[in-house]
Amino acid sequence: MARPIDVAPNSPRELVMARIIEAPRTVVYRCWTDPELLMQWFAPKPWQVTDAKLDVRPGGLNSFMMVGPDGQAFPNAGVYLDVVPNERVVITDAFSSAWVPSDKPFMVAEMTFEDHSGGTLYVARARHWSDEDLKAHEEMGFHTGWGQCADQLEALARTIGA
Amino acid sequence: MARPIDVAPNSPRELVMARIIEAPRTVVYRCWTDPELLMQWFAPKPWQVTDAKLDVRPGGLNSFMMVGPDGQAFPNAGVYLDVVPNERVVITDAFSSAWVPSDKPFMVAEMTFEDHSGGTLYVARARHWSDEDLKAHEEMGFHTGWGQCADQLEALARTIGA
Repeated sequence: MARPIDVAPNSPRELVMARIIEAPRTVVYRCWTDPELLMQWFAPKPWQVTDAKLDVRPGGLNSFMMVGPDGQAFPNAGVYLDVVPNERVVITDAFSSAWVPSDKPFMVAEMTFEDHSGGTLYVARARHWSDEDLKAHEEMGFHTGWGQCADQLEALARTIGA
Repeated sequence: MARPIDVAPNSPRELVMARIIEAPRTVVYRCWTDPELLMQWFAPKPWQVTDAKLDVRPGGLNSFMMVGPDGQAFPNAGVYLDVVPNERVVITDAFSSAWVPSDKPFMVAEMTFEDHSGGTLYVARARHWSDEDLKAHEEMGFHTGWGQCADQLEALARTIGA
């Protein structure tokens, strides 16, 4: 299990989750940016991610399908805002492509990867455009869901060489 | 007067304004990205722009004050999404800094500058997150206001060497 660590939000309307992952940050970054790896951990099981297409550069598309245990399928699409290899990835669903507004700007997700004595300090921040969306995201189970995925991410990362 | 030219929107919820500006596109681009120049044309007179601060790079801040003839002052702030020198500038008010959601994502403004036999084809596209915002922007006088500013931009650009 990835070790929880307490990190405070650094902006309003932000949910934050932080874990120490027992793997180098180059590997954690690969798990976030290689579609074949992402599909193995990015949905809380028994949900699955399929059809991931990751054009990992500012303005590039980030798209995938979330598939439930009963076959429910939900397409997700967003755009990368910032990419610093092995350090940071920022994605938002506010654009359906660069730079066309989506139907519903829900959140910006900023993931950072830092060296840590235990491996990698992995911090995921979800920032929202409204208090209502923040609350809805929390009630949808942000902390449980992202936490379970972080455990899955660590289990995968530990099988991969640096 | 900058010559109007008919250009169609290329995405939903978009207002577009296009003009031929009698000046090289390097100069038109400078008028958009040098704060001392921008302040001379960016508000429809008798309105004025003051305190322009332009950090012209993806993620950089774009901020200025709009000051009315009776001293009304409205701060504006946004973030650059994309910058291609002498070709394109994309700005949005959806972020108050990189990458923190603003209180109200209203629009993305994409300006392009292309060589044209008459000087520069200057196209400004304002894209919105909702039909209501598109309509409000049109009713606020997008076409008249941006058109008047394009005339002011051309008048300034013609005084500047390439």
